[in-house]
Amino acid sequence: MKPSIPKGTRDFSPGEMLKRNHLFGVIRSAFEHCGYLPLETPSMENLSTLMGKYGEEGDKLIFKILDSGDFLEKADEQAWSAKDSRKFAVSVSEKALRYDLTVPFARYVVMNQHAIAFPFRRYQIQPVWRADRPQKGRYREFYQCDADVIGSGSLLCEVEMVQLIDKVFMDLGFRVMVQYNNRKILAGIAEMIGAPDQMIELTVALDKLDKIGVENVKEELVQRGFSPDALSRLEPLLTFSGDRAGKLALLDGLLADSLIGKKGLEEAKLFFGYADTLSFNSLHVELELTLARGLNYYTGAIFEVKADDPRISFTSSICGGGRYDDLTGVFGQSGLSGVGISFGADRIKDVMEEASLFPSDWAVSTQVLLVNFGDEYGAELLALSGRLRNAGIRTELYPDPVKMKKQLAYADARKIPFVLLYGEDERIGGSFQLKDMSDGSQSAFDWESLLLKLNK
Amino acid sequence: MKPSIPKGTRDFSPGEMLKRNHLFGVIRSAFEHCGYLPLETPSMENLSTLMGKYGEEGDKLIFKILDSGDFLEKADEQAWSAKDSRKFAVSVSEKALRYDLTVPFARYVVMNQHAIAFPFRRYQIQPVWRADRPQKGRYREFYQCDADVIGSGSLLCEVEMVQLIDKVFMDLGFRVMVQYNNRKILAGIAEMIGAPDQMIELTVALDKLDKIGVENVKEELVQRGFSPDALSRLEPLLTFSGDRAGKLALLDGLLADSLIGKKGLEEAKLFFGYADTLSFNSLHVELELTLARGLNYYTGAIFEVKADDPRISFTSSICGGGRYDDLTGVFGQSGLSGVGISFGADRIKDVMEEASLFPSDWAVSTQVLLVNFGDEYGAELLALSGRLRNAGIRTELYPDPVKMKKQLAYADARKIPFVLLYGEDERIGGSFQLKDMSDGSQSAFDWESLLLKLNK
Repeated sequence: MKPSIPKGTRDFSPGEMLKRNHLFGVIRSAFEHCGYLPLETPSMENLSTLMGKYGEEGDKLIFKILDSGDFLEKADEQAWSAKDSRKFAVSVSEKALRYDLTVPFARYVVMNQHAIAFPFRRYQIQPVWRADRPQKGRYREFYQCDADVIGSGSLLCEVEMVQLIDKVFMDLGFRVMVQYNNRKILAGIAEMIGAPDQMIELTVALDKLDKIGVENVKEELVQRGFSPDALSRLEPLLTFSGDRAGKLALLDGLLADSLIGKKGLEEAKLFFGYADTLSFNSLHVELELTLARGLNYYTGAIFEVKADDPRISFTSSICGGGRYDDLTGVFGQSGLSGVGISFGADRIKDVMEEASLFPSDWAVSTQVLLVNFGDEYGAELLALSGRLRNAGIRTELYPDPVKMKKQLAYADARKIPFVLLYGEDERIGGSFQLKDMSDGSQSAFDWESLLLKLNK
Repeated sequence: MKPSIPKGTRDFSPGEMLKRNHLFGVIRSAFEHCGYLPLETPSMENLSTLMGKYGEEGDKLIFKILDSGDFLEKADEQAWSAKDSRKFAVSVSEKALRYDLTVPFARYVVMNQHAIAFPFRRYQIQPVWRADRPQKGRYREFYQCDADVIGSGSLLCEVEMVQLIDKVFMDLGFRVMVQYNNRKILAGIAEMIGAPDQMIELTVALDKLDKIGVENVKEELVQRGFSPDALSRLEPLLTFSGDRAGKLALLDGLLADSLIGKKGLEEAKLFFGYADTLSFNSLHVELELTLARGLNYYTGAIFEVKADDPRISFTSSICGGGRYDDLTGVFGQSGLSGVGISFGADRIKDVMEEASLFPSDWAVSTQVLLVNFGDEYGAELLALSGRLRNAGIRTELYPDPVKMKKQLAYADARKIPFVLLYGEDERIGGSFQLKDMSDGSQSAFDWESLLLKLNK
């Protein structure tokens, strides 16, 4: 029997894990420095908690867990006869795997509202599962890294999200561009061109401006049922080229009669007013009116983050989020406004691979290997490795007294930078021979100088 | 709709998470200092990878994932008619949730044997799922923290495991006792009393000596079919009270004619020979002949760890492991010997709660809260929190300019130790008022002294 793993899933080998641990470590540290508290929810939720929260398509992508025991006793006979798998599934599975981190977070807030001190800043780094068709860069199990502050409508929260983004990418080591837009502005535009119910269709089309050009976008809008009048009102926005001040002035005119549009414009101006006073280390912020983001629960500011670094060709979004007014309403608690952000670990990892931004293996793994010259040195080697570890040095002892060549080949394969030789000469002389695997050089050290060398 | 979570699962609130992160951080750091490399395997395995590996009872406890799409098309009609849920399940679920970390590790080693440098030291900290009946201390989702070295038969590996245990509990802050036994010794005893096939029954009975006493153990052995002759040979072992040297001398006599028994005895003597030369910081090691451990794949040394600290009343095992000769054989690769150990995170957490060994919340969460006196301070507060974070201080800004009392109540509920006041006076004076929440005292600081105070 040749073993395998389910399609769309991955083993993370030690080499991959060292990178992931670095990445998650940076993100977690940034979350904690900004006051976010850790939360973990169960991998399984009640099926009823998840169903209906991600649209009809989403429901199909939820992994359901078969009930234990004699589940056929309560299986849906009608669904069986009709060969209706979807209906049958609900009768034999009460639980399902987490599809994202947002719905479980909302569920947690509602269940624990009386124990929570609001505004509640929480972060959550956990895998989610989706029964999507696997393809390049899309997996059935992947990690999300989310931070949300819930229970405050203050616009400072939006600016603090940008500070959080700044800290993450400064610590990861590359520059990014933060695109800002506001759902209320988009709603205002839709309203002013006479298509208030078509905000989503409008933004989907706008989103393609860069790729397909003005004329094609117009054609798409016509096909989606926008009127010639709407198109002519939209024209100035489609063809506009200028800086942020110019864009805002244009919107001042366009949205003069839209209450929601003016509100969004005011929020955007306040946001940039704050952002302009801050000095960021790794990013700049742009107003991007074609930014829409798919999730319907956003109601104010929306963000997307893209790499902005000459070493990186990757142009997709690597992080995104926004303001929502009623995340918990579906579970019976209304009126909690919040801002959330999600870092795409897989994509950020791809970007960092391209730009060679990960620390090399030896910087995060074993620092020194003790060569094993024979059983007669066993006790001394054990004591020595214990002393080195107590001094904070990541140390491995080769367990078998095999040929030196084999032990060095192991150090080489594992990319361990130093090898320590301790045999009869060293036992008598009380010194240590240290071999630098990068150039093969070898010298004698006493204990103090050995620690200095290895700690460098 | 009132939301809930599936029985046997848990939300880990921020307070719980801060403890868990501390615990996992210590364990992970110890693993890495001893040369173990991180590995993560998918939550889902092919059902065929897991079935048959945990006994018949285990098979029932595996959570199966319902196939996506029209799974009824290939459902087992016969099993449906016979209402045979177990047989039906296999026809509609190809995947299942990980039941432990050992089988996926063996599967990984076999799949990647050509890319692995042996001896392979890997650690893995991930949740596992079991459809057990939930009860106090037993959950359907829980974490395992495993470390294994595979590809070496050296006895140094066993001693290094004890060094690893020593490091973990030294860093966690309490003393433990490591109980050592050897499956070969147990096999030898079973052989010498004429019951070579009853090693497991023998050890299950021996395991109860402390609880039920010699006479009851003997009675149980009779019921399990051991002969009077076997019992009389066993007698000296049952009634023995003495130190390790005495125990070993007794075994020297008892096992003189058992090849496997003598081999086990030799291993035990070598192990203690090494262990006695080392100075441990947080443990001592005992030979415990009644230790059996349930898992059948162990073939040599076995360990269990129990708290040994006056502050702790918890007597169950909190960590255990042992030597196996053929973990990967079931997946087609024989001859890889190894030693593994597993730390029971939930139990260790219980122990540490009892002894109040976790750092207080404020030691690991937000250090200072900036009070918000009004929108006119927004830009300055944002800049200030950014500067504090860049100086390494975990900082939160209260987002809304509500009454000071409410902001202080938030700091109190969150156990944030310091509150920073920055208003008109401070703006003019260029200083900062810092309130110590532990005693309510308040003083003025300049930037440098503020950092010093907060970094303390």
